[in-house]
Amino acid sequence: MRPNRLREIWGTGKAAINGWLAIPSGFSAETMAHQGWDSLTVDLQHGVVDYQAAVAMFQAISTTDTVPMARVPWLDPGIMMKVLDAGAYAVICPMVNSAEDAELLVKSTKYPPLGGRSFGPIRGLLYGGADYPEHANDTVVGFAMIETRAGLDNLEDILSVPGLDAVYIGPSDLSLALGCRPTFDDVDPPVAEAIDFILAKAKEHGKIAGIHNGTPEAALRRIEKGFRFVTISSDARLMAAGARTVVGTMRAGTST
Amino acid sequence: MRPNRLREIWGTGKAAINGWLAIPSGFSAETMAHQGWDSLTVDLQHGVVDYQAAVAMFQAISTTDTVPMARVPWLDPGIMMKVLDAGAYAVICPMVNSAEDAELLVKSTKYPPLGGRSFGPIRGLLYGGADYPEHANDTVVGFAMIETRAGLDNLEDILSVPGLDAVYIGPSDLSLALGCRPTFDDVDPPVAEAIDFILAKAKEHGKIAGIHNGTPEAALRRIEKGFRFVTISSDARLMAAGARTVVGTMRAGTST
Amino acid sequence: MRPNRLREIWGTGKAAINGWLAIPSGFSAETMAHQGWDSLTVDLQHGVVDYQAAVAMFQAISTTDTVPMARVPWLDPGIMMKVLDAGAYAVICPMVNSAEDAELLVKSTKYPPLGGRSFGPIRGLLYGGADYPEHANDTVVGFAMIETRAGLDNLEDILSVPGLDAVYIGPSDLSLALGCRPTFDDVDPPVAEAIDFILAKAKEHGKIAGIHNGTPEAALRRIEKGFRFVTISSDARLMAAGARTVVGTMRAGTST
Amino acid sequence: MRPNRLREIWGTGKAAINGWLAIPSGFSAETMAHQGWDSLTVDLQHGVVDYQAAVAMFQAISTTDTVPMARVPWLDPGIMMKVLDAGAYAVICPMVNSAEDAELLVKSTKYPPLGGRSFGPIRGLLYGGADYPEHANDTVVGFAMIETRAGLDNLEDILSVPGLDAVYIGPSDLSLALGCRPTFDDVDPPVAEAIDFILAKAKEHGKIAGIHNGTPEAALRRIEKGFRFVTISSDARLMAAGARTVVGTMRAGTST
Amino acid sequence: MRPNRLREIWGTGKAAINGWLAIPSGFSAETMAHQGWDSLTVDLQHGVVDYQAAVAMFQAISTTDTVPMARVPWLDPGIMMKVLDAGAYAVICPMVNSAEDAELLVKSTKYPPLGGRSFGPIRGLLYGGADYPEHANDTVVGFAMIETRAGLDNLEDILSVPGLDAVYIGPSDLSLALGCRPTFDDVDPPVAEAIDFILAKAKEHGKIAGIHNGTPEAALRRIEKGFRFVTISSDARLMAAGARTVVGTMRAGTST
Amino acid sequence: MRPNRLREIWGTGKAAINGWLAIPSGFSAETMAHQGWDSLTVDLQHGVVDYQAAVAMFQAISTTDTVPMARVPWLDPGIMMKVLDAGAYAVICPMVNSAEDAELLVKSTKYPPLGGRSFGPIRGLLYGGADYPEHANDTVVGFAMIETRAGLDNLEDILSVPGLDAVYIGPSDLSLALGCRPTFDDVDPPVAEAIDFILAKAKEHGKIAGIHNGTPEAALRRIEKGFRFVTISSDARLMAAGARTVVGTMRAGTST
Ligand SMILES: [Mg+2]
Ligand SMILES: [Mg+2]
Ligand SMILES: [Mg+2]
Ligand SMILES: [Mg+2]
Ligand SMILES: [Mg+2]
Ligand SMILES: [Mg+2]
Repeated sequence: MRPNRLREIWGTGKAAINGWLAIPSGFSAETMAHQGWDSLTVDLQHGVVDYQAAVAMFQAISTTDTVPMARVPWLDPGIMMKVLDAGAYAVICPMVNSAEDAELLVKSTKYPPLGGRSFGPIRGLLYGGADYPEHANDTVVGFAMIETRAGLDNLEDILSVPGLDAVYIGPSDLSLALGCRPTFDDVDPPVAEAIDFILAKAKEHGKIAGIHNGTPEAALRRIEKGFRFVTISSDARLMAAGARTVVGTMRAGTST
Repeated sequence: MRPNRLREIWGTGKAAINGWLAIPSGFSAETMAHQGWDSLTVDLQHGVVDYQAAVAMFQAISTTDTVPMARVPWLDPGIMMKVLDAGAYAVICPMVNSAEDAELLVKSTKYPPLGGRSFGPIRGLLYGGADYPEHANDTVVGFAMIETRAGLDNLEDILSVPGLDAVYIGPSDLSLALGCRPTFDDVDPPVAEAIDFILAKAKEHGKIAGIHNGTPEAALRRIEKGFRFVTISSDARLMAAGARTVVGTMRAGTST
Repeated sequence: MRPNRLREIWGTGKAAINGWLAIPSGFSAETMAHQGWDSLTVDLQHGVVDYQAAVAMFQAISTTDTVPMARVPWLDPGIMMKVLDAGAYAVICPMVNSAEDAELLVKSTKYPPLGGRSFGPIRGLLYGGADYPEHANDTVVGFAMIETRAGLDNLEDILSVPGLDAVYIGPSDLSLALGCRPTFDDVDPPVAEAIDFILAKAKEHGKIAGIHNGTPEAALRRIEKGFRFVTISSDARLMAAGARTVVGTMRAGTST
Repeated sequence: MRPNRLREIWGTGKAAINGWLAIPSGFSAETMAHQGWDSLTVDLQHGVVDYQAAVAMFQAISTTDTVPMARVPWLDPGIMMKVLDAGAYAVICPMVNSAEDAELLVKSTKYPPLGGRSFGPIRGLLYGGADYPEHANDTVVGFAMIETRAGLDNLEDILSVPGLDAVYIGPSDLSLALGCRPTFDDVDPPVAEAIDFILAKAKEHGKIAGIHNGTPEAALRRIEKGFRFVTISSDARLMAAGARTVVGTMRAGTST
Repeated sequence: MRPNRLREIWGTGKAAINGWLAIPSGFSAETMAHQGWDSLTVDLQHGVVDYQAAVAMFQAISTTDTVPMARVPWLDPGIMMKVLDAGAYAVICPMVNSAEDAELLVKSTKYPPLGGRSFGPIRGLLYGGADYPEHANDTVVGFAMIETRAGLDNLEDILSVPGLDAVYIGPSDLSLALGCRPTFDDVDPPVAEAIDFILAKAKEHGKIAGIHNGTPEAALRRIEKGFRFVTISSDARLMAAGARTVVGTMRAGTST
Repeated sequence: MRPNRLREIWGTGKAAINGWLAIPSGFSAETMAHQGWDSLTVDLQHGVVDYQAAVAMFQAISTTDTVPMARVPWLDPGIMMKVLDAGAYAVICPMVNSAEDAELLVKSTKYPPLGGRSFGPIRGLLYGGADYPEHANDTVVGFAMIETRAGLDNLEDILSVPGLDAVYIGPSDLSLALGCRPTFDDVDPPVAEAIDFILAKAKEHGKIAGIHNGTPEAALRRIEKGFRFVTISSDARLMAAGARTVVGTMRAGTST
């Protein structure tokens, strides 16, 4: 089976650089896949993307060595299994609030006996290879998002669930959960503290910790602290920021 | 009929700032439309976009005041009429090589008696208003691309075609036509000379001149010279450039 | 944030006129949006519409002042959050049977601390404006459908759930639930009685009550009784009815 | 091969009642196909429809006995052959201006030796049956639209082209061509005269004459005059008209 | 209402031959529908298919007499109701583990009073006929997949749920559940035993039993044993197998 | 630039094995791309495929080493340039009837000074690499289809057009053109003779000759004769044949 480059990176003690896809287009996904990211996550939760578009995006990413991933809309076995069957090598699940939630994530992303994933890895076989069934459980990665008050309170239990690979922090939701402004990098002190706490606990349990960032500078600081999976910005944000800069320069240059 | 903001800008003697859309997605188009461009051109020629995607993109642009435009794949009456019927307020036609070509462009984009556009402005009525039929000929803009040796040679004839509104320069094709490297801003001397020639002749004939640019700096210089319609970069290029910068910063920051 | 015209109408004591979209097409949605409805609801439950089509339809509606809404397929947090993120200003949730159901509806449609909606209003920001996060909870409307025996039995509890904005009656399902023929306007007596009961209770709790209708005549009667949100027919039904009339006239006129 | 119901109707001396599809959706097409039309024409010219949507619409129509037809965007062999291969049983070609144009229409829609249609009736075989190749030339119908000054001037020549089956009048374009207001039913006198002329000439040459109408009343009058193929309104127009009536009734009923 | 050919076949004591669709395309579905299958199942679980594609596929199948079916991704009322509303005449639900699961399946696929299916059979009316509401409960078939350890353990309870029509065995999942290799036809002895057990119990309860097969030979053996619904291979598998054979022959023939 | 495997195969004197794609789906294209074909041709002429679907199919093929190709609907510069920009490495153009036609093919597929292809290889850069512009003319292959009486008559002239890479025979159209039954492998004697003639002339002019086949056996015989590019069957045909065999076996096995 094609190895998961994320696990290879983690095996060398390094951090993976993840891009984010909110535009439902195979062409923009392929363009992003040529920019050097270690992995790209198709966002089926807050991105404007559904399953059929996601499949086209996985195919587009698969023209390169970048690892195809998905964030699913919710803790729902159906869609978690569908994105894996379509060739995603990692799944990020939002708002994991309890050990029970984490168990359902594991159950949905690992084959028996570890989990209860239903068998039928249709595009997974094309992307991963004919021995996908034997190696999928050790290859595919499941991230539990810790971004609610309940998720924080039950963190130890969540991290103790067998088969859970990693946690991922959504700073905006975590901020709202703690009564703070929803933002990525410059979070309020209670959020900063919670992030440190999650990272420390993940390390304790030998789990990978990942986090969403607005800028590469913030992401580099996160890596220094010990995060091993950092997302920076998104396709739509990078495009919009570039466009705003261009238009701003044009307006400034023609305003006299 | 909803006025064409391009004509309003030109009426005040100013230049219009045009963005470019190569990603076949209504969501990326809408995101671009919120960044302040005067107009946005859906590129059905070199963009990865066909008609059905273009319609969704026109709708997305129409949620804002940005003018929806299209570049068509070729000098073909069918597609020119279809994008106008779908609500485009301007059409850019590639590789207009002769007065005959320019006449076909006019014929395809203006109703009789000026032209021969077929009647059925289905989404044009929704976007432009119920009086679209009366005002379309004075509202819609047709750009003839001058980007071949023949186009240069026949420039006077092309500019003399009644009903032609504007010309648009594709520096890459023009460069290739003149035996130079295909590029946007830093064109070779023969291309620079040809661009100046086209601009001068367009002014002589009272036609708007537009041009494709890679950077805002180049576009500002073009405006200073007298261009009244400048395109800068594209959705996919801005996204890719942003991503490359982010990944570059991340690799630099983690390479020790 | 762009105000929700539904709330403005309700603020003046009037009723909103809602259209219904079952055809998965941005073009038919835009055409409907130009006919004067106060709001248009994309039906992801019984309409032939999924999320990706719904986004295109929201964009199409957003070219006008008509309020974009969605009925979701089921009481599922994932899809409720996704349609809101895509810019819907109201969500209708089918078959709310208990206070617990209503709480999940509120949790899925309101940000903390009122609810548990996950943060990432990607197209909501484009449609609503940059201050969407601050005002979304007071702008977006959540309708709980009362259309089952359990929903009737638990009506008081449902209406007492904090953050619930409105109820919506599906006469067909309510009829089936009460052992009657599934229909819209000419419901059987037990259904008529249940509808009156729901309306009275909603008023008592200061909640808006809405209802589905087949004809404008029935809808006007509903408004007179106190309903403040009435749906009439649908895109597909109006088209089919028009076509049947045309074909009928033609067959009658040519049958001799 | 499945017979063409249009030819069967014409064989009994009757007129066919044709509906018109401008919405790019298989569901709206199927809904229309259940309303009793003899044939339904997917409008790839002024409808918001491209080829891929048209195929889905042909499939939808093929769930009933209604004859699937297409109007193509322009006199282009590629698209004429593609819609036939996809199972259309008739093609309407806009703006046929000369015998040469009519010959290209015949060449594009009939197999050798009569024409030059390329062989590969992929969905035609599914829809028409395994003997499609033998009978296609006698089954498929080609309509030449007469709607320009040149078309009028060259009418005799056009009608004399071997293999041409029928003509179709676009009253709006014909009106514009004659310097009149673009409209369907209540055309100006010069247009009325031209229509009578086309009908008379078609009869002389033994060709079927068809025409576009806004209302069934106008269509019935056309049939009385001798037209054998009448289109009335369209999916989008019928839907919009129904919606306008509903909203008008609601506004009138709530305006006090 | 159009009768369900599956029930007609079962009424004569015979077995139905079912094809399987994993390619999200109306054209491949229509091509398959012309090959003589009794029914075709659109696989929304392990196929690369979502709801919008499934609707197009149901339409394509509906151009023939083949029965349109769907396997849903998970035991979720929303999607089960949506595929039925779109005209599916049978639903296969994966991983039914308990009587409670089976009850939810029945509740989602049958109207009150038997179940709780929400009313709005939009395309069901087109496909089935105007009397769909009265006959749907007796026409539509619901299959509970027995393919987990829990499903086996609770088989009697599941089969005792009123309104359940049939069970369907997924040999791969059942194999994994029993610690065996995931495969279709040549299952390991514990799986073979479990399959016999399920079949025997289904017969006892007067329920139809169906099963997935890789080859017609295996399917024929299953029919002999008493299975009344057999699936063989899939669109993608048949295509791939054919292609492998062709390429193999070509490589062998050109390798000298 | 990524080399064109077709040219590599031809450089070693061997024949390339080409598959054919008529189903408009990225998933079926990717499945085909894993079966060992040297190249796969997306058929935009007789396949049920348009440009937007073709792009998804090119992306799917690009996940493997198989060469992505396209057959265009007609000799139209717009679509030939669009498929190349989208990453096709070869274009097959139907019904090339004269040297003038062949020159237009070359003009549309090669950059100046050899041709007149417009510059903007958007996905070509992603697939081929950053040096695409320099090497495209020597990498991309253009096939002129010889399949009409005129094509036969003008064969010498066509083969003499500078820049033409190859010819491709469509046996069905060629058969019709010569008054014979349209078929692939078992062509009538006049067609067999014409095929031999084309092959001999292509060899004389040092051009590659390719041909469409129904079976591998026929294709092997063609290779032995000197054809260097053979297509065998298609995705839809292989799927349908496999399905027919399965259903036939099932009917035979259950007919007693
Ligand atoms: Mg979050
Ligand atoms: Mg150019
Ligand atoms: Mg309901
Ligand atoms: Mg016309
Ligand atoms: Mg299974
Ligand atoms: Mg051919």
